[in-house]
Amino acid sequence: MNLTDIQPENQQLKKRLILVVSKGTIDMLYPALVLATTAPAMGMKVDMYFTFWGLKALTKDGVNSVKIAPVGNPGMPMPNIVGIIPGMTKMASTMMKSKIEKFWPDVYAMIKMAKDSGVKLHACSPTMGFMDVKEEDLIPEVDDIVGASAFLSWASEPDALTLFI
Amino acid sequence: MNLTDIQPENQQLKKRLILVVSKGTIDMLYPALVLATTAPAMGMKVDMYFTFWGLKALTKDGVNSVKIAPVGNPGMPMPNIVGIIPGMTKMASTMMKSKIEKFWPDVYAMIKMAKDSGVKLHACSPTMGFMDVKEEDLIPEVDDIVGASAFLSWASEPDALTLFI
Amino acid sequence: MNLTDIQPENQQLKKRLILVVSKGTIDMLYPALVLATTAPAMGMKVDMYFTFWGLKALTKDGVNSVKIAPVGNPGMPMPNIVGIIPGMTKMASTMMKSKIEKFWPDVYAMIKMAKDSGVKLHACSPTMGFMDVKEEDLIPEVDDIVGASAFLSWASEPDALTLFI
Repeated sequence: MNLTDIQPENQQLKKRLILVVSKGTIDMLYPALVLATTAPAMGMKVDMYFTFWGLKALTKDGVNSVKIAPVGNPGMPMPNIVGIIPGMTKMASTMMKSKIEKFWPDVYAMIKMAKDSGVKLHACSPTMGFMDVKEEDLIPEVDDIVGASAFLSWASEPDALTLFI
Repeated sequence: MNLTDIQPENQQLKKRLILVVSKGTIDMLYPALVLATTAPAMGMKVDMYFTFWGLKALTKDGVNSVKIAPVGNPGMPMPNIVGIIPGMTKMASTMMKSKIEKFWPDVYAMIKMAKDSGVKLHACSPTMGFMDVKEEDLIPEVDDIVGASAFLSWASEPDALTLFI
Repeated sequence: MNLTDIQPENQQLKKRLILVVSKGTIDMLYPALVLATTAPAMGMKVDMYFTFWGLKALTKDGVNSVKIAPVGNPGMPMPNIVGIIPGMTKMASTMMKSKIEKFWPDVYAMIKMAKDSGVKLHACSPTMGFMDVKEEDLIPEVDDIVGASAFLSWASEPDALTLFI
């Protein structure tokens, strides 16, 4: 695909990507992190707002434990989204994480890559409260702790592409 | 954080927030309701479109029963998104709802707060059909019952920030 | 509802809808497909980007098997989103698919309807890799196989309304 074909007026494209990361499963963290690490090369400034379950990926404990496959763990019930498609069996699920990591680094490495590309990492302040996450529990890559109004102020910029993941 | 630093041209910010509420779990209703109750103070006009599982939050039965924690209910399997993060155990989950409510009112109170701030609540008409929800089953705060084309017409306004939650 | 009331400047509405289809469950495929089949009649050009679990809906095996209800299958644990709302019982869930199909055709028929309306169907290339989906496994309706940068280039157009579903 020739991208210039679909970008006739490149200079008018949105230059800011705002990602709300609301889920803590590996299958929803990767879509966010892949976009976050792809967009800077396209000239976009990226902000990631980690809220609710997504916040755990910004904690020292969480960012490492997310490496343990959420799907296919024998001690856990099958995720619903897996059970629906025959062929997407439990065994296949067990292998998913290792397959994903043939394509991309693990979650923490992706976060560091994003950070190195200038991506800003924001922790949701009320989520920290009700999940008992202290500032010292956060990984050092976190830029700041903000609330919903900060997120809305960024997301309402005309130049922003905002996705709730 | 000084919001004026990141809002150099405040008058150009989007002034409309459109939220699709597609899930009925407490952990996805709160992100929508927190945004809906925050945005009016920032001068935004908010529309919430409740579809699929989200519609239940607009029913008399559903809006009260959602107060029963979706996570940690002994009779239910653990939600997948909880199991993934060690430390986010079942017991922690059981406490989540009470912790959330230290920060925010319960779901129905949040809906009423939103309504008082001028937020419009829209029920998805086809969802009402296949979920057997009648007009008299809806809470009185609902503004109207509309379909996908009404939603798309709002969301396609250049001034709208639209999030699918 | 008189749509002209809320579309004072119809000619300025966004004319492009970009849908990220990231989940493979029937309850998240329908919202995407209903929007995709509604938007063309409103003059919108639609692109659907199938990634992660959503990709399965573009496979020959997956698009048919998704017809088997993801909810209420006796062999599967109850989806979490169902358990939360009393009244949305397992039995009700079992009936959901048949009820949905009173309103809309099945998933593959919806995909074909979308295609007939000019909707473009894009398969996510890295997802194909880690899910072991080959090009010959895809349904013939798929337009192309692209990566995150192609998606971002479309989504960052000022005229695009982008939803992550």
